[in-house]
Amino acid sequence: MNYKQLQTPSRTIMTPGPVEVDPRVLQAMSTPILGQFDPAFTNIMNEVMEMLRELFQTKNKWAFPIDGTSRSGNEALLASVIEPGDKVLVPIFGRFGHLLVEICERYGAEVYTLKTEWGSVFEQQVIIDKMKEVQPKIVAVVHGETSTGCMQGLDILGKACREQDVLLIVDAVASIGGVNIPVDEWYIDGIIGGTQKCLSVPAGMAPITYNDRVESVIQGRKKVEYGIATEEEFGSKRANMIRSNYFDIAMIQDYWGPRRLNHHTEATSMIYALREGLRLVLEEGLEERFARHSYHEAALMKGLEAMGLTIYGDPACKLTPVTCVVIPDGVDGEKVRKLMLEQFGVEIASSFGPLQEKIWRIGTMGYSCRKENILKVLQALEAALIRNGFEPKRGEGVQAALDYYDVPSYVLIKEA
Amino acid sequence: MNYKQLQTPSRTIMTPGPVEVDPRVLQAMSTPILGQFDPAFTNIMNEVMEMLRELFQTKNKWAFPIDGTSRSGNEALLASVIEPGDKVLVPIFGRFGHLLVEICERYGAEVYTLKTEWGSVFEQQVIIDKMKEVQPKIVAVVHGETSTGCMQGLDILGKACREQDVLLIVDAVASIGGVNIPVDEWYIDGIIGGTQKCLSVPAGMAPITYNDRVESVIQGRKKVEYGIATEEEFGSKRANMIRSNYFDIAMIQDYWGPRRLNHHTEATSMIYALREGLRLVLEEGLEERFARHSYHEAALMKGLEAMGLTIYGDPACKLTPVTCVVIPDGVDGEKVRKLMLEQFGVEIASSFGPLQEKIWRIGTMGYSCRKENILKVLQALEAALIRNGFEPKRGEGVQAALDYYDVPSYVLIKEA
Repeated sequence: MNYKQLQTPSRTIMTPGPVEVDPRVLQAMSTPILGQFDPAFTNIMNEVMEMLRELFQTKNKWAFPIDGTSRSGNEALLASVIEPGDKVLVPIFGRFGHLLVEICERYGAEVYTLKTEWGSVFEQQVIIDKMKEVQPKIVAVVHGETSTGCMQGLDILGKACREQDVLLIVDAVASIGGVNIPVDEWYIDGIIGGTQKCLSVPAGMAPITYNDRVESVIQGRKKVEYGIATEEEFGSKRANMIRSNYFDIAMIQDYWGPRRLNHHTEATSMIYALREGLRLVLEEGLEERFARHSYHEAALMKGLEAMGLTIYGDPACKLTPVTCVVIPDGVDGEKVRKLMLEQFGVEIASSFGPLQEKIWRIGTMGYSCRKENILKVLQALEAALIRNGFEPKRGEGVQAALDYYDVPSYVLIKEA
Repeated sequence: MNYKQLQTPSRTIMTPGPVEVDPRVLQAMSTPILGQFDPAFTNIMNEVMEMLRELFQTKNKWAFPIDGTSRSGNEALLASVIEPGDKVLVPIFGRFGHLLVEICERYGAEVYTLKTEWGSVFEQQVIIDKMKEVQPKIVAVVHGETSTGCMQGLDILGKACREQDVLLIVDAVASIGGVNIPVDEWYIDGIIGGTQKCLSVPAGMAPITYNDRVESVIQGRKKVEYGIATEEEFGSKRANMIRSNYFDIAMIQDYWGPRRLNHHTEATSMIYALREGLRLVLEEGLEERFARHSYHEAALMKGLEAMGLTIYGDPACKLTPVTCVVIPDGVDGEKVRKLMLEQFGVEIASSFGPLQEKIWRIGTMGYSCRKENILKVLQALEAALIRNGFEPKRGEGVQAALDYYDVPSYVLIKEA
């Protein structure tokens, strides 16, 4: 068979990830590669660690990506701290809470859950009370739940975990780089970010950071591979070894640390991409970036409501970079999405499980989170609705967004 | 801190991976991304599957990459077939045999090993006899052992495994795309390839393929995630579930198959890279590509020997794309490597464990496997040896390679 040169259609990607990649990141990926132990490359690895510390607002020693898509970061952190029989408490308020449960169960944890209706989150005190009752080793919780567009408050949970000597592990895949997550200030012990969402880097890496409390658990389970171990390490501790080799953070540390002990071969071009993505975040500034995400989120919501649509979920816990919209009665949500994609090249997302065919999800993340995209998605959605049997307030959506954009952004950002 | 724009020094990478990435692959990675369920993207996924079948010379239904570096492919296949207590036989002839043992142990297998001196491989009958004695569920074996530069014969092992109803899983990370591996003809049940070696694609993906014998084991352990399961699937079989979520091939299949059930978000830019890398392989032709690898390997070996150096390992089992060289007595191998890198921008590798400081490893893989690179590595090595106390036959290495290259390549390839 004859395979043609890669050619992709032009797209405006307004899903909750993957989103459009910043052109500077795309460029960085076409840089020729370096060998994995070339000092020019290990310097880049060190720079990425430094920049990740800034992104996560932490003084943690360890901050590096796991070489896999976002959930590989969740699995690496959980696999490295969970020993069979450990109690883990997971508050569930959407699909990705279930994923955390799933991972914990597979690694032999005794999992306790808290559940709340999709579209809402937990009062932190409810989690704290349950934690005191269960006395788990770990609380694992999603911060930004993309399946429902909800964001769990975390500002007092971490301190309570610390007081009870419980590890707090946070899935911030959808929120990192788009909303404020001061890791140290919130006493988060381990956290996982995503690349293909608010960082606007392609999927394929999962940046994590963790503190010395997590590290001490991990070091207690350390094992060095036969093929590269020194005499003393050969046949080292193994009874409680981490069950995955690929996700064994004790070994990955030795690769990212000064010993540079080979574990895998770092994904060179993806590291270039992550470095450029982080550089863009730091150039923009964290506060400015969070403000930009809120700014365009507001424009989108004003537009959707003016059109006559309903935002899904409790507004008090809305996740800034993901706006969920109730699919109007009688409208086939998939037909609307298809028309938007095929005729306008604009992509929005559906949802999962109980919310499938009930809501659309519109992302305002990273490089995709900009004025022209907000206006495009409102226009394409209006046209697709009209052709699928729903009568919106014609023209009002875009006019509401334009009215909003008429006010200088620094005024709005100050007010927010 | 102020981070500068990414800028990398020019390098001639002659290690056994990662090697230089083909410029067309670098270009493909700078293509804007598509959403993961965009038909334009799922078509690309399907094309990659087709091309991988050609690479692996198989009619298998399943052929796709695991989103992680090479060892993630080993772990995914092994984790998906090994249930705790399963017997696995691993013949070890270098570091990566130990890695297979390590992964199997972590997933609860009862591992039996065969060992031979590093630098040699096994008569296949020895493995077959041991298999008959142990009666394992799986034989897991490395094909191209980069740590020693040796290649294990596999042409009769698979048939013997099939007759005993044993699964044969092969690590072909270092050899795929560089030497002939007819997967179906050799009765290989599951196999893992690497991207950053003979395919000249960056590290970060591990293409695998497996047949229906492997699939039936995997399907017997299937579990669908809570957050996306249908009513009937909810709470489906779990007693013998695969221990890793990320490496659960039963679920990954549903993402690559017609159901397109979300597992992870495919690593978009890496898929673009892999697609272009595979397109280059198929344009060149498998036979022609294997011949090219042998052709330049011969030039390198002639040059090294003419210089007065000794090739390490049993020549009968030499791995075509990796040439190991004995570090002469009294020479500091790391100083030689450092000088080559710093003064000439040429990178060669050291080795692991018992071979550390004993041999250098020179790769002739993929895009790096070309005449100008062979000549450069010989020149840089000669100069570095002279400055580090070893007196080579000055000029002879490059002259021997040039003599070889003077004969038209089609004559040499025909003779081979």
